[in-house]
Amino acid sequence: MIKLQQLCGIIKGRLKGDPGYEILSVNSLEKAGKEEITFAAKDTVKLEQVKAGALIVAEGSKIDYANLIYVPEPYAAFAALLEFFFPRSPFNEGIAGQAYVSPTARTGSGVSIGMFSYIGDNVEIGEDSEIHSGVQVYHNVKIGKNCLIYANVVIREDVEIGDHVIIQPGAVIGGDGFGFTRLSDGTPIKIPQKGKVIIGSHCEIGSNTCIDRSTVEETVLEDYVKLDNLVQIGHNVSIGRGTALSGQVGISGSVKIGKNVIMGGQVGVGDHIKIADGVMLAGKTGVVGNIKEENSIHGGYPHQDIRQWRKSSVIFRNLEKYIDRIRVLEKKIKKLEENEK
Amino acid sequence: MIKLQQLCGIIKGRLKGDPGYEILSVNSLEKAGKEEITFAAKDTVKLEQVKAGALIVAEGSKIDYANLIYVPEPYAAFAALLEFFFPRSPFNEGIAGQAYVSPTARTGSGVSIGMFSYIGDNVEIGEDSEIHSGVQVYHNVKIGKNCLIYANVVIREDVEIGDHVIIQPGAVIGGDGFGFTRLSDGTPIKIPQKGKVIIGSHCEIGSNTCIDRSTVEETVLEDYVKLDNLVQIGHNVSIGRGTALSGQVGISGSVKIGKNVIMGGQVGVGDHIKIADGVMLAGKTGVVGNIKEENSIHGGYPHQDIRQWRKSSVIFRNLEKYIDRIRVLEKKIKKLEENEK
Amino acid sequence: MIKLQQLCGIIKGRLKGDPGYEILSVNSLEKAGKEEITFAAKDTVKLEQVKAGALIVAEGSKIDYANLIYVPEPYAAFAALLEFFFPRSPFNEGIAGQAYVSPTARTGSGVSIGMFSYIGDNVEIGEDSEIHSGVQVYHNVKIGKNCLIYANVVIREDVEIGDHVIIQPGAVIGGDGFGFTRLSDGTPIKIPQKGKVIIGSHCEIGSNTCIDRSTVEETVLEDYVKLDNLVQIGHNVSIGRGTALSGQVGISGSVKIGKNVIMGGQVGVGDHIKIADGVMLAGKTGVVGNIKEENSIHGGYPHQDIRQWRKSSVIFRNLEKYIDRIRVLEKKIKKLEENEK
Repeated sequence: MIKLQQLCGIIKGRLKGDPGYEILSVNSLEKAGKEEITFAAKDTVKLEQVKAGALIVAEGSKIDYANLIYVPEPYAAFAALLEFFFPRSPFNEGIAGQAYVSPTARTGSGVSIGMFSYIGDNVEIGEDSEIHSGVQVYHNVKIGKNCLIYANVVIREDVEIGDHVIIQPGAVIGGDGFGFTRLSDGTPIKIPQKGKVIIGSHCEIGSNTCIDRSTVEETVLEDYVKLDNLVQIGHNVSIGRGTALSGQVGISGSVKIGKNVIMGGQVGVGDHIKIADGVMLAGKTGVVGNIKEENSIHGGYPHQDIRQWRKSSVIFRNLEKYIDRIRVLEKKIKKLEENEK
Repeated sequence: MIKLQQLCGIIKGRLKGDPGYEILSVNSLEKAGKEEITFAAKDTVKLEQVKAGALIVAEGSKIDYANLIYVPEPYAAFAALLEFFFPRSPFNEGIAGQAYVSPTARTGSGVSIGMFSYIGDNVEIGEDSEIHSGVQVYHNVKIGKNCLIYANVVIREDVEIGDHVIIQPGAVIGGDGFGFTRLSDGTPIKIPQKGKVIIGSHCEIGSNTCIDRSTVEETVLEDYVKLDNLVQIGHNVSIGRGTALSGQVGISGSVKIGKNVIMGGQVGVGDHIKIADGVMLAGKTGVVGNIKEENSIHGGYPHQDIRQWRKSSVIFRNLEKYIDRIRVLEKKIKKLEENEK
Repeated sequence: MIKLQQLCGIIKGRLKGDPGYEILSVNSLEKAGKEEITFAAKDTVKLEQVKAGALIVAEGSKIDYANLIYVPEPYAAFAALLEFFFPRSPFNEGIAGQAYVSPTARTGSGVSIGMFSYIGDNVEIGEDSEIHSGVQVYHNVKIGKNCLIYANVVIREDVEIGDHVIIQPGAVIGGDGFGFTRLSDGTPIKIPQKGKVIIGSHCEIGSNTCIDRSTVEETVLEDYVKLDNLVQIGHNVSIGRGTALSGQVGISGSVKIGKNVIMGGQVGVGDHIKIADGVMLAGKTGVVGNIKEENSIHGGYPHQDIRQWRKSSVIFRNLEKYIDRIRVLEKKIKKLEENEK
């Protein structure tokens, strides 16, 4: 527990509120509890649901809240508090005796490589990147600066990874895409998959998530793409900056996803589909065609406008009653018709 | 070959039939041959196709068969015979020369640790637990007695695991939860995930299943929780005793699941949802709100009572016909209206 | 880039078209672009969507296309070009110093085993098979000739794998099936899973895919079965020759799938279901009963004929409008009834 006044000193802010109020940790605006501090990105954030112990806001902000710290750049201050509450403690230091690093690999200063990790020929690893234990990095891979690669990750040959990337345990980057051709009797024959996977900076890849390589094209994640666990990214997919895909989402081959798209869990997207910037998809949505309207929200399978999907879903729940109403109508009509004769 | 009388002794059953009849192995009801023993789960099983040398049945069973062994619990007796015919053979003994065990780790008597496994600082492993090869255990992890951790499992820092827990290959325990905050331009910024994952005794975790840690709260599996393969458990989830989740189920953050809940494959549960004890969910169900009624059964997406969902689904299959009936009604009404004029 | 005339020489074919046309690579008929060559399995292939730079066809073919190479066996010629464009470069040669190979394991000539890989007792590996780094192979496993096992794969005891099999990183073969019995208070008790997993020749298993073993029966993949990433194959499943399952498909226990079946992503199949040869399932289909008709196409959950499902889905999107039409009918009828009085 640390007092607000002290936190205020750390981020060189101006406090409005209770200097003795005690804070345990940081969290997001939506999730922060009474013992947590967070920040407001804009003055227009909705405060009704906010339960945080204190808010960091911009100088001149008109936000009204019990405990406020004014700073020139709220996010920078928040990031400083992240560092303060969660100082990074290295998993290992330097290159473990029981790691294998190819003589042709190049590692920057401050790089650490864990036990039983394999770093192949011509691999480049940027300064301060941390490779944990049991990680297998094939030849010709490039990993940028300050990356964090957790245990038992596999990175196949020729993959390129930017700076400040985090890869959770067990993820597989650059596995072969699912590409086959069939003989006349139906026998499937593998088409080699030799394309690159390119991952931008500040991306995060979840546990046991898979990102495939293509025959020749590149599979690309732009900067700040966030993938949750057990996500499947097919070959030749591209994903725009800031897009976040929740657990068990499946993206088929050659899909093009825009920037800041958000998908709920278990969404599936069919191959060659294009999705515009800012689109949001409810969990389990099945996307069967292009979504061209930016910032639109969809649900259902086949996907449709989320409001319409909700209306249809409500009716679906009670379909039996509607069918009963049809039956009643049929009887009444029959009676009317008979009466007419 | 072993005589029926001897098998009968092992499972402490009562024999009806030939004590000298010889049995070679166990098999399923459908596949067991004349030299194999099997079990009948219920009295209502069909016996016409059964060729087994002997059947294990419940005390009081009315099944008529040449060789029968009566026991209180046929499944449990069958499991005992599986152990008898297929005894557990340890994967390795003691601590492999090519394993790394931190000098500050404490391992109980009878613990074995496989090749290329990493046991971090301050890890505790209880007696008779078996860690196979390629397992990565981060610092401060506690593993109880008589656990079985299969190859290439990753257990992140601070995770606590009870006694008699089985973790299938490739599972990831304690990966970071999917927690972000967004800047005003939409850029997602990671919120550190430092909470614990706590797994009770007698749990089983399936192959390549992922259980996430939260920002500060605990993710908890009570005793006897069973997770199938490729299951996703989000951060800050709690799962009650005896609950079983089938393959590819996805549980979003902060979900609270009761005891003895059963979910079919590919079920998805939205965040912050509470599910009562004994609830059953059909495969692919999408849970969008709290389920408060204990032992209730649900299906569909959005989820609803299973009977109602089945009725709606049957109607859905034939929606076209119902729409045709509406069209017929419209024509008839039009005719009636015209006749009236 | 290589000229068509040169490629024609490599496969000893007869060229019709531009000898100087330049080709960069090979690809499938559907995916090949202007700089790629492909082949036509039959004369009946549809050419409208084909954009390939050149087609390999059978002598006597009546296909009309800008650049054609005639050969006696188009697929054999295509395979030769695959070898030409993508020569196999071994990941490692021989048995790495930091691998562990049991003294009782038998490896054929030309076998390579990567760093930090464990090969257990009595394992057999056929000639020219390549095991990458971090692979854990339990005792009594048989791996055929010319297989390619990528990094961090786990193969549990007694699994049998044919020739020319490719297993992508992180896959788990032979994990325990999800088998439990419940005591009278609901406590789930594990049933041991001791059955074999048998994988035919020319199969491919995707990244982080899981194939379970059964209590006693065998889980079987026939030759040429292709599984994409994150697929779940339950215990005692059998899958026929040439069947291809896309990403995140889940197959429950004891399912029997025929030959040349094709499933889209995220399909789920309930337990004990039988699916006939040549069946096709749209993405996200939920199969709830046997599919007996060969080559039939299905979608939806519960699954139904794909055309009927599409019709129902179109109606579902606009259910509100149909309900409005019922309401209009009800009003009209009421009026007619009132007029009658």
